[in-house]
Amino acid sequence: MEQFLEEAKSASRVLSTLSGSEKNRILKEMANALRSNTMDLLEANAIDMSDADKNDLSSALKDRLLLDESRIEGMAIAIEEIAALKEPVGRVIDGWVTEDGLKIEKTSIPIGVIGIIYESRPNVTSDTAALCFKSSNVCVLKGGKEAENSNKAIAKVLQAVLSKNNLPVSLISLIPDSSREGVAKLIKMDKYVDLIIPRGGAGLIKYVSDNATVSVVKHDKGQCHTYIDKDAKLDNAIAIAINAKVQRPGVCNAMETLLVDSAIASDALPKLKAEFDRAHTELKGCLKTQSIIEVANATDEDYDTEYLANILNIKVVDGVDGAIEHVIKFTSGHSEAIITENITVAEKFLNSIDAAVVYVNASTRFTDGGAFGFGAEVGISTNKLHARGPMGIEGLTTYKFKIYGSGQIRK
Amino acid sequence: MEQFLEEAKSASRVLSTLSGSEKNRILKEMANALRSNTMDLLEANAIDMSDADKNDLSSALKDRLLLDESRIEGMAIAIEEIAALKEPVGRVIDGWVTEDGLKIEKTSIPIGVIGIIYESRPNVTSDTAALCFKSSNVCVLKGGKEAENSNKAIAKVLQAVLSKNNLPVSLISLIPDSSREGVAKLIKMDKYVDLIIPRGGAGLIKYVSDNATVSVVKHDKGQCHTYIDKDAKLDNAIAIAINAKVQRPGVCNAMETLLVDSAIASDALPKLKAEFDRAHTELKGCLKTQSIIEVANATDEDYDTEYLANILNIKVVDGVDGAIEHVIKFTSGHSEAIITENITVAEKFLNSIDAAVVYVNASTRFTDGGAFGFGAEVGISTNKLHARGPMGIEGLTTYKFKIYGSGQIRK
Repeated sequence: MEQFLEEAKSASRVLSTLSGSEKNRILKEMANALRSNTMDLLEANAIDMSDADKNDLSSALKDRLLLDESRIEGMAIAIEEIAALKEPVGRVIDGWVTEDGLKIEKTSIPIGVIGIIYESRPNVTSDTAALCFKSSNVCVLKGGKEAENSNKAIAKVLQAVLSKNNLPVSLISLIPDSSREGVAKLIKMDKYVDLIIPRGGAGLIKYVSDNATVSVVKHDKGQCHTYIDKDAKLDNAIAIAINAKVQRPGVCNAMETLLVDSAIASDALPKLKAEFDRAHTELKGCLKTQSIIEVANATDEDYDTEYLANILNIKVVDGVDGAIEHVIKFTSGHSEAIITENITVAEKFLNSIDAAVVYVNASTRFTDGGAFGFGAEVGISTNKLHARGPMGIEGLTTYKFKIYGSGQIRK
Repeated sequence: MEQFLEEAKSASRVLSTLSGSEKNRILKEMANALRSNTMDLLEANAIDMSDADKNDLSSALKDRLLLDESRIEGMAIAIEEIAALKEPVGRVIDGWVTEDGLKIEKTSIPIGVIGIIYESRPNVTSDTAALCFKSSNVCVLKGGKEAENSNKAIAKVLQAVLSKNNLPVSLISLIPDSSREGVAKLIKMDKYVDLIIPRGGAGLIKYVSDNATVSVVKHDKGQCHTYIDKDAKLDNAIAIAINAKVQRPGVCNAMETLLVDSAIASDALPKLKAEFDRAHTELKGCLKTQSIIEVANATDEDYDTEYLANILNIKVVDGVDGAIEHVIKFTSGHSEAIITENITVAEKFLNSIDAAVVYVNASTRFTDGGAFGFGAEVGISTNKLHARGPMGIEGLTTYKFKIYGSGQIRK
């Protein structure tokens, strides 16, 4: 593992010699190579799918694992879209001349070597490799065991393009030891690896955060709330609440708990229940909620659970202060929303809640690189530092200060 | 410790209710409180100084520890200068409207609770407390044991101003258990602490980096190089080299190794030696250097040592490529300089070296918040992420996305 990472680190120097147009040409070759190797990719994927059958994986997992021609075409298009992004490296982020006459340019540069740990979906392999290559980073990938053959086949196709262009294959590679011990080693190799991005279950993320000496950008859980204030337009509020819960319950920006102002609870809750019943949402509620509509009992443990399913907690709170109190107690710092027409109340909520994204009058489902207009998304960071919230390709860069002098010495 | 940090965390909510002018008024009160409590501070410091005598501390350490009237006045002025900085919180860093009509404001916010671990100089206590307060962060401070009485006295003065203004004293506090075990606990408390800044020896920094689950911004060593290219103006080069080594050898932005292009070595080295001899610099050199001037032998270990003293390694290298190779091998990613009039050579060096600050034709001694024009400096980060290089008060903020909608739901 150490030698493997040492090679990855030294390969990163090659990337600084490539121009943006060279990188984009190679990315387009990669997209076409995926297309022309569709049969090999499908064969490798068939092995994973048959193992999945043997191992009795759930149908949801198998669906994520499956490759077909249209999904491979989708992977190729994703790489072409990444090629079309603006060059992320060498951007002058800030610049000024000091009192000593030094010209300072704060310039974006690659992070270096990025380790990415992920699960199931094989397209993450090509998406991530392309994002890292576009931003002149080396990636070392650790995919899920269940997708091993598919990931190896994808990496082989991308590496063949690198070789054809006289570039080291270690620019894009799967880690040689993908066991738990391999991961344990990887996350301690701060000498060679500059950033680890774990994408997966809570257990994996906690393990990596607790044990890594390398910097980590987490993609942790989304315990998202929507608060309906007494000054909300109720039609808006109901549409947003339904959207935030029901449109795609299995994702991190879906709502888990709906907070309703006590001043409008007796009017709003029956209307909300009618809509959620139509959407087959399983409802749990606090005692006050239970006194107005028929729902199961919600406990503190429920308020702390990311269901990732069509299940919702409802709690009646006393105004925006009650909502803020509940959110501060249970937020995971992902996305929080208030529905109100009152600007003072809205600003109080937006300013009091410490989360990556805070909304007024919109669904938390918009927390997403695509919806933000970032073009491609590395993920949604729950870090407080470096990258927060939807993380575009910019999140794969850092900066240095380039300073131009004319003989200045310090007085 | 846990209860102490829980209080610190919950106190942080109070800070969001203070306006910039209220914070500045309170900071000015703190500055004046230090002035009016000069006698108490000197008394507390006298106990530390007498302990220092008993424990046979070095005279350099004792000098750092010492408070006198003018140093206390300096601390008060530093707080007033921090009060005069532009408000760092609530700045709209970026903003746009999405295709869905959502207005996004990327807004600077405090980090939350910041733990700072430092040594010796008592003024760090008031500087850091003021920087954190100005940026609406709670600070939990862990100063050096040798400065314990001074630090307690300073914290007491600042806390009295908080109390007078009906603010919780836990906004600025020393950790209750400042033993090694206390630190071990602090750096694992990611539930309450958002960032740890260790300032001190290599041992402390490695210990914190290896064991913290909280995010860390390191202030690690500066293994800084200056490369004199054949196309340098030699007078410039000599003046810069002397400045980078001699002006203040004990700091992280001082040069440790001078690289000289082989094409000019026989001309440049005798001139450099004459100047360094005048400055009483102890010189070590590679074999080629030794064949031109009389110096001790420099080993790879020397090239890897941050002397923090008036000692310098000299190495003859073959052009900019030789310089880049040496720097990549030994850099600590702090500050690196090239002296040349050739723009292509300069850009090659600036782009090939991965360091926080890269210079052409200037002394590495400029890597400093003051010289950068940041006004006040939290320190010089050797992190690659979040904050890199001189870290102004901006480095004590992160951001959130505030999103203003009008009923948008995700399609």
